[in-house]
Amino acid sequence: MNMSDYKPKHFNWLAQNGVAVITLKGAERKNPITFESYAELGQTFRALSRARDIKVIIFGSNGGNFCSGGDVHDIIGPLLSRDMKGLLEFTRMTGELVKAMRACPQPIIAVIGHGRASELLYTGRVMTAEEGERWGFFNRIVGADKLEADSMAMAQQLANGPTFAHAMTKTMLHQEFAMPLDAAIEAEALAQAVCMQTRDFRRAYEAFVAKQKPQFAGN
Amino acid sequence: MNMSDYKPKHFNWLAQNGVAVITLKGAERKNPITFESYAELGQTFRALSRARDIKVIIFGSNGGNFCSGGDVHDIIGPLLSRDMKGLLEFTRMTGELVKAMRACPQPIIAVIGHGRASELLYTGRVMTAEEGERWGFFNRIVGADKLEADSMAMAQQLANGPTFAHAMTKTMLHQEFAMPLDAAIEAEALAQAVCMQTRDFRRAYEAFVAKQKPQFAGN
Amino acid sequence: MNMSDYKPKHFNWLAQNGVAVITLKGAERKNPITFESYAELGQTFRALSRARDIKVIIFGSNGGNFCSGGDVHDIIGPLLSRDMKGLLEFTRMTGELVKAMRACPQPIIAVIGHGRASELLYTGRVMTAEEGERWGFFNRIVGADKLEADSMAMAQQLANGPTFAHAMTKTMLHQEFAMPLDAAIEAEALAQAVCMQTRDFRRAYEAFVAKQKPQFAGN
Repeated sequence: MNMSDYKPKHFNWLAQNGVAVITLKGAERKNPITFESYAELGQTFRALSRARDIKVIIFGSNGGNFCSGGDVHDIIGPLLSRDMKGLLEFTRMTGELVKAMRACPQPIIAVIGHGRASELLYTGRVMTAEEGERWGFFNRIVGADKLEADSMAMAQQLANGPTFAHAMTKTMLHQEFAMPLDAAIEAEALAQAVCMQTRDFRRAYEAFVAKQKPQFAGN
Repeated sequence: MNMSDYKPKHFNWLAQNGVAVITLKGAERKNPITFESYAELGQTFRALSRARDIKVIIFGSNGGNFCSGGDVHDIIGPLLSRDMKGLLEFTRMTGELVKAMRACPQPIIAVIGHGRASELLYTGRVMTAEEGERWGFFNRIVGADKLEADSMAMAQQLANGPTFAHAMTKTMLHQEFAMPLDAAIEAEALAQAVCMQTRDFRRAYEAFVAKQKPQFAGN
Repeated sequence: MNMSDYKPKHFNWLAQNGVAVITLKGAERKNPITFESYAELGQTFRALSRARDIKVIIFGSNGGNFCSGGDVHDIIGPLLSRDMKGLLEFTRMTGELVKAMRACPQPIIAVIGHGRASELLYTGRVMTAEEGERWGFFNRIVGADKLEADSMAMAQQLANGPTFAHAMTKTMLHQEFAMPLDAAIEAEALAQAVCMQTRDFRRAYEAFVAKQKPQFAGN
C-alpha cells in the first residue's frame, strides 16, 4: 500500500521522499484537536503499518503551533454531557491513537514540545520524560526557530537510512520494555541476527571498505 | 476522619488549610530518626488514606535539617545485638513506611535533598533518581534558602487544586509502573473517564468559559 | 579462586590490590574487539563470580582509546558469509558477555564514553541512558585527561569498602528491576538484614563511635 497521495479529511498530510508531515487544521485557533481528527489520526497510524512508501512521520506546526490541545468548546464542553459509556469511548479513542503510533514501524518526529504533545495525547495530563521514553517515540529538542528545518533534515536522514533496521529498533524498544532482562538480551540477539541478513548490512560494509557513503534501500 | 488536630508522640505535626507539615524532633542532634518515630510515621501514613481534611504532606526541616538518618547510638548500636528475626523486624518496618507513603492518596513534598531522604528511608542506601521516580513521590529541587516558602506555596497550590484528580494521578503512576503498556493505556482511559465525571472537571470548564480562575473542591 | 595472576590470551589484564584493569589489544587500530576477545571476555566475567581477590573491574584505555568497536575486517566482513545459525552464535555471544558482566558481583567502572561502550557491547547500536541504568553498570562521567587517575581512585575506594554490601547492592539493583514494587521492598528488607549481620556493619559502627575511619574486610 502507498500513502504518499493520502488525503485525510480532518488534518493536513504532505508526503515527499518517504517523509510524511502531519499538521492539524484551524491555525486561527492554534489547531485544536477534535473528536474527528483524533479518530482519523488513529486510523491513519494503523494504516501506516502497511504503507511501503512512508518511512518517517513528522508532526509539524501550522501557523507556529502544532496543537492547542483538546478544544474547550468542541471537546471539553460536550464531554460534560456524556455518560460513563460515552466518556470511555472518548478516553479509549485517545488511547487507541497512542497504541497505533507505537505499533506503526515508522519513527515519529515530534519536537513540538513535551507540553504540547502531552496535551494532544492525554487531554491535558502532563507527560513526564520517563513516560516519553517509555512510549518509545523518537525525540530531540531543538530551538523553535530551527524546528522545521531540523525536523525535515532529521526525517530525511532517517528515511534514507536502513529503515528495516530502524523499524526493528522501534519494535524491540517497545517489546523489551516489558521483558525480564535475560529475555530482552535474547530478543536482541535474534533481532540483530535478522538485521545482519539484510542487504543494507552488506551495503554498509561494502561502502565502508570502499571508503564511500552507503546507499541504503530499507531491505 | 480528620487529622488536622492529630498529635503524634514521636514527631511534630502542624496542619493548616489542608497541608500537614511533618518535622522530626531533636534539632540539637539534627533530628535523628528512631525506632519509635519510624513506627509512628508508618501508622500515620496508613491513617492518612482516610483523612478527609489533609490534602498534601510536607517533610519540613527543624533547625535547618530534616533528618540526620538513623541515629548511630539509638538505632545502629542496638541493631548489632539483634538476631536475624529482630533485624528483619526493623528492615521491614522501614519498608512498611515506604509502602504507606506510596499508598496514601496525598502528594508528598520532600525537597529536603535526595541524600537526606534516602537516609531516612533506606538507612544510608543512596536513592537514585530513577528510583525516586519509580517510588512515585513528587519532587522539585529548590535552593535551601527558598525551601520552606516554596514547599508551602507548592503544597497550598496542590491542596487548592482538583485533589481527587491528584490522588488518581498518584495511584495510576504507581499502578501503571508494573503494567504492560497496553494495560496501562486502558487503565489510563478508565481513570480519565472517572475524573471527567468529577465536579472539579465541570468547574474547570465553566471557569475557562467564563474567563475566571476555577475554584476546586476535590470532588 | 584467585585471579590476580590471571593471563588472558586476547586482552590485557593487570590486577593489583583487588582492582583488575582490562584493556584491549591493538592500539595501532584503536583496539578493535574480535571474536576471540569477545568470547574470552565472557568467560572471564563468568569466572569473576568465584574470584575472591578481585573486588572491582576497570575497563581501561590503551593508547588513548578503549575500543574502536567490532573490527570491520575481522568481524563485520566474516559475518556477511555466515548463515542464520552462525549469526545467532555471534549475537548470542555478545549477549552472554552482557549477562556475565551483570552476573559477576564486582562493580565495573567504564568511563570510556557511552558511545564506545555501546559499540563494544552492541555492535554499533546506541545505548540510551535509560538502558545504561537498566543494565546496572556503575557509571560516572569524568574528563578524558583525568580518566585513568579518577577511575583508579574510585576503584580503590570501592575495593577497600564493604565489598560484601557492594555486591549485594549490585545483585539487588538487577533483581528488583524486574519485580513489582512491593516485592522489591520485601527483597530490600531481607538484603539489608543480611548486610547488618556482616562484620563490616559492626566495623562501621565501632569506627564511628571511636571517631576513626572504618577498615572494611568485605565480610
